[in-house]
Amino acid sequence: MNQKLRVVSFGLGPIGQRAAALAASKTSLDLVGAIDVDPALVGRDLGELLGSDSVDGITVSADAAATLQDARPDAVIHCTSSFLPVVGDQLMAIAESGCNVISSTEELLWPRLQHPDIADRIDQAAQAANVSVLGTGVNPGFVMDCLPAFASSVCYGVESVVCRRYVDATPRRLPFQKKIGASMEVDQFNDLAAQGKLGHIGLRESIALLGAALGFELDTIKQDIQPIVATRALETEYMQIKEGQVAGIHNTGFGDERGKRRIEMDLRMYVGAEDPVDECVFVSEPPMHLRIEGGTQGDFATAAMLVNGLAGVVAAPPGLRTMLEVPLVHLVG
Amino acid sequence: MNQKLRVVSFGLGPIGQRAAALAASKTSLDLVGAIDVDPALVGRDLGELLGSDSVDGITVSADAAATLQDARPDAVIHCTSSFLPVVGDQLMAIAESGCNVISSTEELLWPRLQHPDIADRIDQAAQAANVSVLGTGVNPGFVMDCLPAFASSVCYGVESVVCRRYVDATPRRLPFQKKIGASMEVDQFNDLAAQGKLGHIGLRESIALLGAALGFELDTIKQDIQPIVATRALETEYMQIKEGQVAGIHNTGFGDERGKRRIEMDLRMYVGAEDPVDECVFVSEPPMHLRIEGGTQGDFATAAMLVNGLAGVVAAPPGLRTMLEVPLVHLVG
Repeated sequence: MNQKLRVVSFGLGPIGQRAAALAASKTSLDLVGAIDVDPALVGRDLGELLGSDSVDGITVSADAAATLQDARPDAVIHCTSSFLPVVGDQLMAIAESGCNVISSTEELLWPRLQHPDIADRIDQAAQAANVSVLGTGVNPGFVMDCLPAFASSVCYGVESVVCRRYVDATPRRLPFQKKIGASMEVDQFNDLAAQGKLGHIGLRESIALLGAALGFELDTIKQDIQPIVATRALETEYMQIKEGQVAGIHNTGFGDERGKRRIEMDLRMYVGAEDPVDECVFVSEPPMHLRIEGGTQGDFATAAMLVNGLAGVVAAPPGLRTMLEVPLVHLVG
Repeated sequence: MNQKLRVVSFGLGPIGQRAAALAASKTSLDLVGAIDVDPALVGRDLGELLGSDSVDGITVSADAAATLQDARPDAVIHCTSSFLPVVGDQLMAIAESGCNVISSTEELLWPRLQHPDIADRIDQAAQAANVSVLGTGVNPGFVMDCLPAFASSVCYGVESVVCRRYVDATPRRLPFQKKIGASMEVDQFNDLAAQGKLGHIGLRESIALLGAALGFELDTIKQDIQPIVATRALETEYMQIKEGQVAGIHNTGFGDERGKRRIEMDLRMYVGAEDPVDECVFVSEPPMHLRIEGGTQGDFATAAMLVNGLAGVVAAPPGLRTMLEVPLVHLVG
C-alpha cells in the first residue's frame, strides 16, 4: 500500500481504545478522528486518553456525521455494541457518508442469521455508496469460525466439526469477569442467563458462518448456557470466588442439518481454567485437528483483527460482506 | 454459486488426477475437459482413467488450445511442473484464451522471488484477458505460509516465526519416497541434492509470502538440504532401508531482515517419522502457537486446495495474484 489509509475510531470502550491505539501505531494507517457519545470521553484529547504519543490533535467527538465529513476517512473501526439492532443506524450512516466499516459487532459476523431486514438495508446503503461493511473479531471472527473455515481448504469433504475454546478468565479485566458471571451465586447466574443478560454473543453467528463455509444446509442452530461452578476457592486481582459459586460460563452450541449434527461448539470461559486452548477437530477426509496452544488472548486479538482487517474491507466488493468474501487477513505494518 | 463453474484439468500426473476426480465429484463444478501430453494418457477416456463414474464423455487431449476453445472453461486446474520457467508459456496461453488458472506450480506461489520477468509477462497476459492466475497447494500454499499468515491477523506485532512440518513418508506413494531420497546412500543423496535434483520445491517461496504477509523486508532468503539418516532398519510397502542409508530429507530455510532472523522453516519428510505435525510458533504480541496434530496429508491436501480455490481465483481481480489477494479459501460443495 503506497498511500496511508485514513481511519476513524467509532466507539472507545476497552476494545475500541485498544484498536485505536494499535491503528495509531501502524505506519500504513493514519488515525484521523475519534467518535464516542460517552460524556466522560467527549471533548477529551485522544492521545491523552490512549496514553499514546503517536496520536496528536484528535479530540473525541460525539458528532459522528461532522467527524466523518471533516476527517474524510477511508474506513471506520466500529466498536459500540454486540447487537445489530443497536448499531444498524450507525452502520448505515457511516456507509452513507462514503466510508468502509469494520466492526466488532458480534451479530454482524453473519448478519442474516438473526436480522435479515437490517442486513438488507445496510447492504443497500453500502452498495449505493460503493463501500463495504464487515463484522469480525477473534470470537466470533477467527478461532471458532474463520480459522476452521480456512482449514477446510485442504479437505476433500467434511462430515462434522467440533470447535473448543477454553479461556482462563483469571488474568482478564473486571468487565470480562463480570460478563461471564464469576463470583455470582448459581441461582443468580441462571436468572440472568435466562434473561439473555449473560454470556458470549455470536456463537450462533459462528455456527452459521462455518456452516456456510463447509456447505452445510443447517436447519437448526441452537445454544445453551450453563454456569461452571468453582470446585475450590479461586481468586483474581478483582474478586474472590468461594467453592460452589460461579467460576464462569459454559456456552455450548450446535448446528444440525436434517437431524445430523454437523457443528458443535464448546466455549468455556472461567476463572481457574487450567487448559486454555482453541481447538477444531474435523471428521473429514483427510483428517484435520487444529490447536492453538494456550488459546488466543481475546482482548488483544479482537483489536488486532479490526486493525489488520482494514485493508481487506477496503479491497472487498461494495456491500455488506462477510469474512468469507474478503482477502485473507494478515498483519499490517 | 448458482451456475456451475466450468473446469478443465491441465496435467494428469498423480496430483492432477486427484484434483480432476475431486472436481468431478463437486456439485458446484462441471469438469468439461482434460489436457496432458503424456502419450500414455492422450486419447484415453478420463472417467476410465480416474475410475470415476461422474466423469463422462471426456477424452484426454494433447492439444491445449483446441480443448480450451471447445470446452470454454471458466477456470483451469493446472498441474504440470514445479518450475515457473517450464510452465510460463502454458500459463500465458491459458490466460490468453480467457480462462482463469489455479496451479500447483510451487514457484508460482510467490512468482516474483525467482522469476520476476516471467511473472510480469503472465500478469500482463492475465490482465489483458481479464482473468486471474494463482499458485497454491498445501506446501507451499497452506501449512508453512498462508496458515501462519492468517494466524497473524489476531496479532499486534510479530517479531519472528518458526514453522515446522514433519511428515511420515512411510505410507506415501513411491514417487514421493524417491523424491525425498529414501533408501539412497548418503553420498548419492548429497550429490543429487548439490545438483538440485532432490528436495521440496517452494520453501523459499513460502518464506517470501509469509515475510510479505508479516511486513518483513527480507534481504536474505536461503535454504539448505540435508539427509535424515536411518538409525535403524526401516520398511515401506515399496522399499527396505538399512541403518545408515537415507530415510528422507531435512529441508531448512530462513529469511533475514538486516541481520535479524525473522522466519525459520524446518521441513522433515522421512520414512519412520514418529511425530508428524504442522506447527507455527510466533514470537509475537499476543503469543501464537498453532499446531495441526498429525500434520496435513500432502497429496490429498494439494488436490483439495486446487479445487476449493477455484471460486477464489475466479473472484479475484484480474492479473497474476497470490493467496494474499484472493478471498479466504474454504471447502466447496
